[in-house]
Amino acid sequence: MQKISSVDIKDIVNEYGTPCYVYDKAKFQNNYKKLNDAFTSHYENTKIHFSVKANSNINVLKIFNEIGCGADCSSPYEYYYAKKAGFTKDRILYTGNYESPEDLKAVANEGLMLNLDDITSFERLKKINVPELVSFRINPGYGRGGFEGITTAGTEAKFGVPYEKAFDAYKLAKDAGVRRFGIHMMTGSNNLEPYFFAEIVDKLMMIAGDIFNELDIVPEYVDIGGGFGIPYYDGEEELNVEATAEKVAKVFVENCDKYGFGRPKLILEPGRYLAGNAGYLVTSVTAIKESYKKFVGLDAGMNFLLRPALYGAFHRVRVYGKDDYVEKVSLCGQICENSDIFAKNILMPKVEEGDIVTFLDAGAYGYVMASNYNNRMRPPEVLVEDDNFKLIRRKETVEDILRTYPEMD
Amino acid sequence: MQKISSVDIKDIVNEYGTPCYVYDKAKFQNNYKKLNDAFTSHYENTKIHFSVKANSNINVLKIFNEIGCGADCSSPYEYYYAKKAGFTKDRILYTGNYESPEDLKAVANEGLMLNLDDITSFERLKKINVPELVSFRINPGYGRGGFEGITTAGTEAKFGVPYEKAFDAYKLAKDAGVRRFGIHMMTGSNNLEPYFFAEIVDKLMMIAGDIFNELDIVPEYVDIGGGFGIPYYDGEEELNVEATAEKVAKVFVENCDKYGFGRPKLILEPGRYLAGNAGYLVTSVTAIKESYKKFVGLDAGMNFLLRPALYGAFHRVRVYGKDDYVEKVSLCGQICENSDIFAKNILMPKVEEGDIVTFLDAGAYGYVMASNYNNRMRPPEVLVEDDNFKLIRRKETVEDILRTYPEMD
Repeated sequence: MQKISSVDIKDIVNEYGTPCYVYDKAKFQNNYKKLNDAFTSHYENTKIHFSVKANSNINVLKIFNEIGCGADCSSPYEYYYAKKAGFTKDRILYTGNYESPEDLKAVANEGLMLNLDDITSFERLKKINVPELVSFRINPGYGRGGFEGITTAGTEAKFGVPYEKAFDAYKLAKDAGVRRFGIHMMTGSNNLEPYFFAEIVDKLMMIAGDIFNELDIVPEYVDIGGGFGIPYYDGEEELNVEATAEKVAKVFVENCDKYGFGRPKLILEPGRYLAGNAGYLVTSVTAIKESYKKFVGLDAGMNFLLRPALYGAFHRVRVYGKDDYVEKVSLCGQICENSDIFAKNILMPKVEEGDIVTFLDAGAYGYVMASNYNNRMRPPEVLVEDDNFKLIRRKETVEDILRTYPEMD
Repeated sequence: MQKISSVDIKDIVNEYGTPCYVYDKAKFQNNYKKLNDAFTSHYENTKIHFSVKANSNINVLKIFNEIGCGADCSSPYEYYYAKKAGFTKDRILYTGNYESPEDLKAVANEGLMLNLDDITSFERLKKINVPELVSFRINPGYGRGGFEGITTAGTEAKFGVPYEKAFDAYKLAKDAGVRRFGIHMMTGSNNLEPYFFAEIVDKLMMIAGDIFNELDIVPEYVDIGGGFGIPYYDGEEELNVEATAEKVAKVFVENCDKYGFGRPKLILEPGRYLAGNAGYLVTSVTAIKESYKKFVGLDAGMNFLLRPALYGAFHRVRVYGKDDYVEKVSLCGQICENSDIFAKNILMPKVEEGDIVTFLDAGAYGYVMASNYNNRMRPPEVLVEDDNFKLIRRKETVEDILRTYPEMD
């Protein structure tokens, strides 16, 4: 792999060095268009909100704002960044969890769509303001994700109002004066099965129907969360978004008719699906070690791409100018612990020191989870558009770090 | 638990809020003294180097510098911080891995003790400078750590020169003109068994003896790494440093005599042992959820203390002013994924929103692994000395982050 869009990766490396995060603007746009077209063609009143936590570079957020996507924020500063990127308040969803009073203060009076995580969230919120519109995140008691850590519902999950208490939550909100309602569920991340999404929508609508009919509520929106997966391995099939949209829309409309909901807004909150394959982590080979196994060391490690160490996740790599997969190596970074291994015994081209190794699918949950572990400065972020590229966030400097120290004796 | 040293935790919280890292200066000092006394009483020429990656706050490094401890650095900026903290070059060890030419340039001419990670590291180094003193990190082919991720030797480990190639490495260095030598081994982290340390010293000395006798080298130092564990659970026994020192010194001296090494410097590189129990992460309860389990949410999560999510590690907690352990809860942060759980089903006092919950043993591999995930600003760091406390690093601000963005159209 030598190019990202029409730009030679070496040109980027010559300008900004390695390691370096690179994003392909067209892929962000195409991912959005594909998902949006599929869903709106089957259910017109669908609205996609980009999950800011997946990639919160403000210049990336601007791209999503410009093409009409909404934002889903999970903390006050994500809301702040979304505003900076130009999202208007009517296109911002706020989905916190274990929201502190301070967090709620930052969003309570903003007129956002609030997905509250618990009954107690509303109790804290109403001391600040009773908004016109409220939604609760429901935990249906089961969930599924690519890894346990990204399974966001079920009896072991920390998220949402347990199904059995959902009625009480909405009743409390209604009694307190809330007049408009949504409902939210997010059961896991990185799923590739269309049926899964139809299933969770069916479950969520059943819950919504029970509660809202009894409370005489017609929901303004139903937020089915994200969880739209992407393939991380060669040969893995993409999520069939067309089939997903068709199945979800069918179940959704049937349930809307059954419960007399009319045609509420159907909200999706993808992060990975919109940003994952649009991002690359470009690194250089620092050293090759013939140990008990062959190790290839790179100038980025778990400090800059945590997913492999944290979840056992896999990111494919490509070597600049080399496509012959001839030897098995383990890929690692320079961090001083053995968690810092990206992949064990994978087939790679024969590399030399200085070769450019690019990680694929690093556009979501990449830079946002980076740290300064081992005191390495976080890399720059570069945006590619056709045959141009520009810096959208510079490399961190030691001065940035030193600035946080007070004068000491 | 209401106090850290003689300071009421509420006073710190009132001044700096939560979350907040707090360090107890006396504990840093006592940990050093305990380990140093034990080892020097059994082997005078012992030198302890604090592993900077465990806690790189410059004001913490200053404490270790002032009491005579050395520094062990794993990246160029760790070296930079160590210098800033006042460590003189003769007390700085540099132990990289998969060292890039740029990394080696930063340290090659500094007169540091260099522990090189591979033969190829020396090949890259000699293009820059052939230093007078060189050491290699040896992988003896086995290792042991508290978790797989912190097991830093063995056939699966990325670290060190494989035992079988160690001779070639030293021969290469000697032929290139290196005149003074050390040897290094680090086989794992967080070990609590004195015998383990004696065993690895025996193994390392056997390797050193074989190589150095054949090459007619007398080593200046033998660096047995760190790995000195601390108890993370109630009831877990501390490492018996006195027994460890005695056993290590005995094996060390026997081997020195056997191989004619005289009395070389014995180097230790502890991080966790010196800093772990001196640090606390002080948080507040944001929300309590009666879900399928009871969850207690805190205003710090895996963003600020990664070890539980990354390794499945456990950190004990204490609740301010409450000592009756009456109910089982799961403890989590506010990060929008289910990895963000500190502990499942642990016995806790009955807490309320706003209660102060303090994590113990957060002085090593705490702040250094923190990120901005979910766009939360990294917490301040506070140092307690007797009944005083002061800020040693302020909370990160959104301006710190925005500063890294170039002006964009």
